[in-house]
Amino acid sequence: MPTPAAAADFALRPSSGSGRSVVVLGAGIAGLVAAYELRQAGYDVTLLEARDRAGGRAWTIRGNDRIVQNDRPLQQASFSDGLYFNAGPARIPSWHHVILGYARRLNVPLETFVNSQLATGWDFGGKVRRGRQMVYDLHGRMGELLAKAIDQHALDSAMPKDELGAFRQFLQFYASLDDKGVYRPVGSSGYSAWPEGYAHPPVPIDPLTLKDILPSRGAAFPQIFDSIIDMQPTMLQPVGGMDRIAHAIYEQVKPSVRFNEPVTAICREGKRVRIEHRGGVTRADYAVVTLPGHLLARIPNDFSPAKNAALKNLNYLKSAKVAFEAPRFWEAEGIYGGLAWTDRLNENVIYPSDHHHAPRGVLVGAYVAGWTHQDTPEAFTKQPIAEQIRISRDSIEALHPGKSQLLQGPVAVNWGQVPYSEGVGALWGDGPAEIGPRGAQYSELLRPEGPIVFAGEHLSYVGLWQEGSAMSAHEALKLIQSMAAEKAGKAAAA
Amino acid sequence: MPTPAAAADFALRPSSGSGRSVVVLGAGIAGLVAAYELRQAGYDVTLLEARDRAGGRAWTIRGNDRIVQNDRPLQQASFSDGLYFNAGPARIPSWHHVILGYARRLNVPLETFVNSQLATGWDFGGKVRRGRQMVYDLHGRMGELLAKAIDQHALDSAMPKDELGAFRQFLQFYASLDDKGVYRPVGSSGYSAWPEGYAHPPVPIDPLTLKDILPSRGAAFPQIFDSIIDMQPTMLQPVGGMDRIAHAIYEQVKPSVRFNEPVTAICREGKRVRIEHRGGVTRADYAVVTLPGHLLARIPNDFSPAKNAALKNLNYLKSAKVAFEAPRFWEAEGIYGGLAWTDRLNENVIYPSDHHHAPRGVLVGAYVAGWTHQDTPEAFTKQPIAEQIRISRDSIEALHPGKSQLLQGPVAVNWGQVPYSEGVGALWGDGPAEIGPRGAQYSELLRPEGPIVFAGEHLSYVGLWQEGSAMSAHEALKLIQSMAAEKAGKAAAA
Repeated sequence: MPTPAAAADFALRPSSGSGRSVVVLGAGIAGLVAAYELRQAGYDVTLLEARDRAGGRAWTIRGNDRIVQNDRPLQQASFSDGLYFNAGPARIPSWHHVILGYARRLNVPLETFVNSQLATGWDFGGKVRRGRQMVYDLHGRMGELLAKAIDQHALDSAMPKDELGAFRQFLQFYASLDDKGVYRPVGSSGYSAWPEGYAHPPVPIDPLTLKDILPSRGAAFPQIFDSIIDMQPTMLQPVGGMDRIAHAIYEQVKPSVRFNEPVTAICREGKRVRIEHRGGVTRADYAVVTLPGHLLARIPNDFSPAKNAALKNLNYLKSAKVAFEAPRFWEAEGIYGGLAWTDRLNENVIYPSDHHHAPRGVLVGAYVAGWTHQDTPEAFTKQPIAEQIRISRDSIEALHPGKSQLLQGPVAVNWGQVPYSEGVGALWGDGPAEIGPRGAQYSELLRPEGPIVFAGEHLSYVGLWQEGSAMSAHEALKLIQSMAAEKAGKAAAA
Repeated sequence: MPTPAAAADFALRPSSGSGRSVVVLGAGIAGLVAAYELRQAGYDVTLLEARDRAGGRAWTIRGNDRIVQNDRPLQQASFSDGLYFNAGPARIPSWHHVILGYARRLNVPLETFVNSQLATGWDFGGKVRRGRQMVYDLHGRMGELLAKAIDQHALDSAMPKDELGAFRQFLQFYASLDDKGVYRPVGSSGYSAWPEGYAHPPVPIDPLTLKDILPSRGAAFPQIFDSIIDMQPTMLQPVGGMDRIAHAIYEQVKPSVRFNEPVTAICREGKRVRIEHRGGVTRADYAVVTLPGHLLARIPNDFSPAKNAALKNLNYLKSAKVAFEAPRFWEAEGIYGGLAWTDRLNENVIYPSDHHHAPRGVLVGAYVAGWTHQDTPEAFTKQPIAEQIRISRDSIEALHPGKSQLLQGPVAVNWGQVPYSEGVGALWGDGPAEIGPRGAQYSELLRPEGPIVFAGEHLSYVGLWQEGSAMSAHEALKLIQSMAAEKAGKAAAA
């Protein structure tokens, strides 16, 4: 079995924590997971959280929730009952066994999140086309070119003759090529007249050229989006909002949690830890610090200069989302969940995966994260909120002419300005194109400061995901466990 | 808007049927839809159904349901409460607006059906690989070959130089090519070491060769499966079983329905219709005949010789499914819904899309329909049921070593032997590769026999789908409507 499903079975040795105390900083996924596992093992746990809620970046906005952001006007949501907006993570890949394991163990119901679907519009170079045209006409055009190259003997040296022949035959089938090697669409890209009953045969839509398919560099991105290991179906979502997982863990650790306790200083005191926070001082044998690295760098501490340098050097992705409530006009176009793509600044539109055929739903009109161009997060978030909403509305109007008037109750979340987050995750420059161990800065961040250990998505190779937060928390707990074992060993030897 | 969403708004003129009677033969989707719309318009409707249930081929098996088949031993299901097996249709494409329209109108809750996902195994040429390896390594290998052809100037004449340059750059990104044009997997095909927390970077799995990817002709099919317009996500399913739509329509037409009434003769009587059936004789102004064409040919009738010849000439697909109940061992492999593929006789395995993380589920261990080879339905269904189950079990064992012992309560449905169906739909030889109007035989089948009109998936270009049944019923009703209008016109003129 290739995926590390066994990671879902993580547990500290029962009672291994009895008589020991840990202070956990941050009630996001890393902190909640740490607190949960430590409590299971008998540790005395205090979890300090700056906000008045658990979940951290796994933030679901409902009803009349308030959206407070640095240097931005206060927003108040106005979603109808039962509707929600996942401002942070919204999908869970099926191989994220650790976070899914917590959902399973704590009975959080999951449903399918529709990430990939091609009935949506792709709005590039000022033209809206269906995703299915862009993807399957690309297959057709690539097949056509490959067949041409083979027929011209340009690939004779690439493989044995019989393999080449079999592959040429496969291309015919794969790319709908006619006997002359010309791409003849058979319906995968859609129809100009759709098949119906009786005497209504389908007429395939005219195929696009490569130039139509790739009008700009941004248009390349959605062509590979589905292939990203974290974006491949099946993806899942908790029923009722992403924060249901965080909330379920929170329910298990509630007695340990203190909300509204921003941390003001972190330091060692002998072999122990001393945390200053709004409501006082908390001392413990160990600390698990899960705050985003770049924010941690601003909190007075006695970490090594190397650690502080590494923390300061972190670069966080400042993505943004805009959401509206609307009647489900997209379903009449055969759209049930999935994403639309655009080279406008809003980058993508996300249709709800839940409650198909319900009267209304939440439409995410912008998810700006540098998908189609690395500069979009900055270009988008430097706009006033009203302008961000206008950009999103205009994009939806282009995708669904006449429908933008149905959009109601917009809210915009700019993660760079969300207090205690100021970003959605650390950027490492090791995106899909780069694979391999990170350098010295990363290694420095993993190192404990005496009894202080660190966790968070930024300390994992599943960065920007709840899975990475949970997995890093497990690693941090293993460090505490071995420190505790060493201390116990010394005590026994004395 | 390209898709005929307006088709969902079909309705006859209110009260247009008052004083007129129609007998509908068959309570499958076509017959139910016909009866529903006729009753809405005020027709006096009698619906005769041979079986003791509505839905026809939209058959969902639950609990201890009995499975009666011609020349086969009786089977009895033993599914746990809440579990079900869609022996017939199991998925609805999002552009099937008519059947989705009935679900919406009659408040049948829908959920996402996971059709496409690549965590499942593809078992071809005796080797099991993950779908993601097969699909994304194919992209990589095709990109590699195309880049080579471009670099060797084999495609210089195919497009302008700047376009070719831009396309070559796109290939680098699309197919993960290194500077030399060599495919270097970045994780889309999976990892040999998966990314984890702290110091655990991912290691991509070694890429497959084209020969690995296409060991046999059957292996080509799953490569294009997702591209079929009817198989593209998002697909949907009614919560609780596919028969929930048929059942909801049945609830609306209940007073018209007579079960256990196989038809024994169909003929005209003056300008009216006379139907003989088990319980007696029913006369009406019109008839809507929705029986499968090849079975209709066997019922004594006074149709034209041309019609009977066309009916006799129909060839029905005799597919088969085998289902088991089991604990959800596949979820530990990151499989939540989706299909596995194989060149074994069982062809594909379907994982449940509903109730993720529930203790148990129904695993379809065979869906044999000629996907990977046109001869498989015959080769599979000529085996005894016990052997069909063994083949399915062995395939699941190959996909999930050690797990086949968990499979319980197998049942096999061979559609060629299901009374009153004897197949799942008509074959027209106009599969994905052939597009365009069908010939004279099809036109003959559409022609009414006086006051007798015909409907069913076989009279649509959305054949083998509930959508085609519903759409053909609408066409049949339009014929009745115009005949009735003509008669009324003549009466008024007289």
